[in-house]
Amino acid sequence: MELKVSIFFVIEVIGTIAFASSGAMAAIKKELDLLGVVVLGVTTAVGGGMLRDIILGAVPPSLFVNPVYVFTAFITVMILFIIVRLNQQILESCYIAAYEKLMNIFDAIGLAAFTVTGIDTAVLSGYGDYHFLSVFLGVLTGVGGGVLRDIMAGQTPYILRKHVYACASLAGALCYVFLSKHISGDGAMIISALLIILVRMLATKYCWNLPAATKR
Amino acid sequence: MELKVSIFFVIEVIGTIAFASSGAMAAIKKELDLLGVVVLGVTTAVGGGMLRDIILGAVPPSLFVNPVYVFTAFITVMILFIIVRLNQQILESCYIAAYEKLMNIFDAIGLAAFTVTGIDTAVLSGYGDYHFLSVFLGVLTGVGGGVLRDIMAGQTPYILRKHVYACASLAGALCYVFLSKHISGDGAMIISALLIILVRMLATKYCWNLPAATKR
Amino acid sequence: MELKVSIFFVIEVIGTIAFASSGAMAAIKKELDLLGVVVLGVTTAVGGGMLRDIILGAVPPSLFVNPVYVFTAFITVMILFIIVRLNQQILESCYIAAYEKLMNIFDAIGLAAFTVTGIDTAVLSGYGDYHFLSVFLGVLTGVGGGVLRDIMAGQTPYILRKHVYACASLAGALCYVFLSKHISGDGAMIISALLIILVRMLATKYCWNLPAATKR
Repeated sequence: MELKVSIFFVIEVIGTIAFASSGAMAAIKKELDLLGVVVLGVTTAVGGGMLRDIILGAVPPSLFVNPVYVFTAFITVMILFIIVRLNQQILESCYIAAYEKLMNIFDAIGLAAFTVTGIDTAVLSGYGDYHFLSVFLGVLTGVGGGVLRDIMAGQTPYILRKHVYACASLAGALCYVFLSKHISGDGAMIISALLIILVRMLATKYCWNLPAATKR
Repeated sequence: MELKVSIFFVIEVIGTIAFASSGAMAAIKKELDLLGVVVLGVTTAVGGGMLRDIILGAVPPSLFVNPVYVFTAFITVMILFIIVRLNQQILESCYIAAYEKLMNIFDAIGLAAFTVTGIDTAVLSGYGDYHFLSVFLGVLTGVGGGVLRDIMAGQTPYILRKHVYACASLAGALCYVFLSKHISGDGAMIISALLIILVRMLATKYCWNLPAATKR
Repeated sequence: MELKVSIFFVIEVIGTIAFASSGAMAAIKKELDLLGVVVLGVTTAVGGGMLRDIILGAVPPSLFVNPVYVFTAFITVMILFIIVRLNQQILESCYIAAYEKLMNIFDAIGLAAFTVTGIDTAVLSGYGDYHFLSVFLGVLTGVGGGVLRDIMAGQTPYILRKHVYACASLAGALCYVFLSKHISGDGAMIISALLIILVRMLATKYCWNLPAATKR
């Protein structure tokens, strides 16, 4: 149990860093100021969990009671801001491709961690039998921060536009809810998280996209 | 009582279909992918009720506990998606005008049903004496899904721009709160719902618009 | 105590007028109709407090139980709408500069009042020891209405783009939480509110802006 908690703490921190970084980069590209970068970065990192807690009626949301992820996100954002501020050419340098590749992996890990912990939170709040609710809250915890980021940055939410992103979260959430009826919770959690990471990696590598109604 | 419940179930289903369809069409026009179409369609259909429940503190919102409207919306969206996918010319065909006419009527029925059931939910939650709250929640239940759709699709909410839409909902909500002090709840509900449908039909036919501060 | 309540009521009314006016003017510039102007004006005025109450789980939010600020905002918006409607040249006249100067001062007063009362609400709800939550709710009460206004009007939130706005609120919130440990609550409240007003006035006068990551 202790080990599981530690592992999940580590991967949640990794996810927080990736999400905060994606929010901060979106804000930097929009030329927002320091505060905007901080707000967008932190919101992307912890916004999904906040929406989940509001819908569950778990107020005040856990991010306020235990702000360790907020601080992680804050420090991530500040480091990024300072690096870009000191060396603006970095945004066009060859490092950026490697950085984005790494962040894509981190992001997949974060999506996986947030989705399964979102479902866990729903189950711990006593809604384990409401499968639709659990799955929804898992996906919301995973993608909600990114949706808030895009709404605040004034663009149509990324997850609604392309790449198998929310779908990976959804597949993992369904897998977790299904498996946890049949095998131990820990095994179900790990398999579902790995499924999400796998789907995201494959989707990035092979440019998977969901079909649209009209051809482009 | 039973009959009333059944009738309202039918008109709520009609409204759900119309709202889901409007969200799905907005997503299709924005060239979103399958997931985007589903999310926008379902959010438009059940988003107003979800916002109402969050403001009332009725968590988790009823749509999760009793997801019949979510499934109705989902099926509507999938049918629309498949039809458009199979036959894209349909978007420019002569059927589309008839379809939009029908959906406009359905939409008015949905607006009426959601507005009065929104007020009912507020009254059942014990806030019958807070008239401002009841009226607000009625209108929010009616128009909230459409506002979420427009925010997610990145456009200024439709209801803030033109046509007597939220106003029809507001007129019906005020009528319901006023009438329910004087006549039976069922009568008040039906009259108010009919008023909303009537205002919407007339507004569409005669192109009613509220005044803007500056002439266009 | 009575006097303090009265003073804060007066400055909250001033703030409500300023916030409602900023929302209404944004709507008028976007050429929204009467309803859009009312919704944007009222949301800007009371939206921050509503978000705070939802996060605190204080439902239904206080604005519905005690709608005096909603009515203040509504009347402000209607007066503005009628003035602009009757005399559209006023938007380009010399009066507009003086009006915007006055509203800027009112807005600073409102930001100060809403920030400190936001923190007070958190403390009264029993979260006085959660400093991060208190500060966040203070800032959210101060700037949340403006963020909702900008999201609904389809623009990147003003506070994320420029001028030391949310920062003034944040400075005052931190000051209030810090001071209230050391001096009486009333003194801390007044000093913090004055600090917010001072920072805003100086930021406007000297065009303070937070740094952005990339030079413009």
